[in-house]
Amino acid sequence: MRSIYLEDGKVVLLDQTLLPGELRYVECDDVDSLARAIEELKVRGAPLLGVASAFGIALAAMKARGRPRREVMAELERAAARLRSTRPTAVNLFHSAQRVLEAARRDEDPAGRAVEEALRIYEEDLRVNRELARRGAELLEDGDVLLTHCNTGSLATAGYGTALGVITEAHRQGKRLLVYACETRPLLQGARLTASELVEEGVPVTVITDGAAGYVMRARGVSKVIVGADRIARNGDTANKIGTYQLAVLAREHGIPFYVAAPTSTFDLAAASGEEIPIEFRDAGEVAFVGGRRVVPARAEVLNPAFDITPARYIEGFITERGLLKPPLG
Amino acid sequence: MRSIYLEDGKVVLLDQTLLPGELRYVECDDVDSLARAIEELKVRGAPLLGVASAFGIALAAMKARGRPRREVMAELERAAARLRSTRPTAVNLFHSAQRVLEAARRDEDPAGRAVEEALRIYEEDLRVNRELARRGAELLEDGDVLLTHCNTGSLATAGYGTALGVITEAHRQGKRLLVYACETRPLLQGARLTASELVEEGVPVTVITDGAAGYVMRARGVSKVIVGADRIARNGDTANKIGTYQLAVLAREHGIPFYVAAPTSTFDLAAASGEEIPIEFRDAGEVAFVGGRRVVPARAEVLNPAFDITPARYIEGFITERGLLKPPLG
Repeated sequence: MRSIYLEDGKVVLLDQTLLPGELRYVECDDVDSLARAIEELKVRGAPLLGVASAFGIALAAMKARGRPRREVMAELERAAARLRSTRPTAVNLFHSAQRVLEAARRDEDPAGRAVEEALRIYEEDLRVNRELARRGAELLEDGDVLLTHCNTGSLATAGYGTALGVITEAHRQGKRLLVYACETRPLLQGARLTASELVEEGVPVTVITDGAAGYVMRARGVSKVIVGADRIARNGDTANKIGTYQLAVLAREHGIPFYVAAPTSTFDLAAASGEEIPIEFRDAGEVAFVGGRRVVPARAEVLNPAFDITPARYIEGFITERGLLKPPLG
Repeated sequence: MRSIYLEDGKVVLLDQTLLPGELRYVECDDVDSLARAIEELKVRGAPLLGVASAFGIALAAMKARGRPRREVMAELERAAARLRSTRPTAVNLFHSAQRVLEAARRDEDPAGRAVEEALRIYEEDLRVNRELARRGAELLEDGDVLLTHCNTGSLATAGYGTALGVITEAHRQGKRLLVYACETRPLLQGARLTASELVEEGVPVTVITDGAAGYVMRARGVSKVIVGADRIARNGDTANKIGTYQLAVLAREHGIPFYVAAPTSTFDLAAASGEEIPIEFRDAGEVAFVGGRRVVPARAEVLNPAFDITPARYIEGFITERGLLKPPLG
């Protein structure tokens, strides 16, 4: 199941909002439609947002090909600005856009180079995640009971996944694992995506509500918690899907090591701590409506942060393509 | 909005599964239909389950009236057994059934006495909750930012509520409060019921997902957490809606006092600790389907505990009709 690819001058992406019920690919032939797909979470997951952002600039490059160099660069800059405006937290999106722009700027053929750099980012994501999974799998032991949050599988990346990639790699090595997947309200990426990926891989998975995580840690012998990341500050403070922070606190209370699996492209060395990471607040409707039915009365407020910050002190280590790292990361 | 009443030989109850979209009352004219309404959570909330259980036996009594004493008692016993089989955790349901049976057993007119005792339990619940609210409100301060879970309002009781009764009473006294209501998956009693009750009372309320509680405690100045209870063991260990335990751990981590508001009828002095409290596991479908749509793939497991146990050491105190109590409670 490919999450994204570039074909015939279009970005083709799996609409993740329809899973697990429906497998539908969406074609984006300009940067605006891709940006909207990002805003609507049809495509999501920090590493995949990095790839999507690069592909978005590649779309603009393919359209601008043959025009004067200055006009091409102006189109690429415009595309990057639109993509940067979509979602503020996942740093990969910003890093990739920057990298494609800089490569284009240094080349005689900026359009051609932008497309090439975008494809390189895609290939790199695959390679880096495979290496991250291999190294992370060494940490998992036969019999481990794992708890994870949101979706960090191949769907969240160009392929292989991050935290979930570690789990599936350890499973392929023959280690017996049991995974508790938090459903991850409001958009249920844990239930819809993580459970589907683990079922496909043959890894035993049990879905729980986010409120049951403490119970499961206390009563069901969870031995490790492993999650992904959207942005990691220099001191190790980590932005990830809302709910991650409380899992880290609960893991500490139960003496369970808490790991963050993320490629080093998720590090934002410009941010000294989590206080410098912007948190995205999303529409109240994501919480207030369930299956088209209003579940929060109209006159009540809703607060819908998409991410939270887990302070570095709760994190046992960062599983990366370079091995297990500890903060500071600079 | 009355949650339950006895009228024309029927138990009339508000179908809480349809709120806030629809206000529909359901009539139960025998113990079986009432037991099913309990199992389907049309009627829920520990104190209200106590009243419903008493009313269920009253229904059987009204039908058996005029028959020989032994036959009446057999009908009441049968009704009690059916009601006890509905839900294992909320102790009020068992206490009330026992109390009605014992009163009937000691009376010349067991049927008449059963109805009378059931009505007495209803009236007592109102009186006790009003007193609990009055005493609990003294603990709340002007400017408090509160966090609560599930629904503990008038809908969860014959009237006034427990934890939510404390909050609305303090609001009526003029204290300015802000309440964060955890939506409480899987059945969203916090979003659907608590938010509706607070909006009706004019108390500012903000609904959050269960995964956002840690973020809100850390970033939004929560000053007190206050929840209800389904059963409290002698040592103070407390069974309440799934998710309560982790809120208690998070409150401790943030230095926020954690209160349990419950009438003393919720105490189970026969249980030495939380280990003796049975936990109800409910159907996987409550988690796996959202708005009729499957969100968990069919081959994944679901674990759906309805309650968890919060150890007494996390609890600042028990707000009861007799004031603030500390364990041991025996």
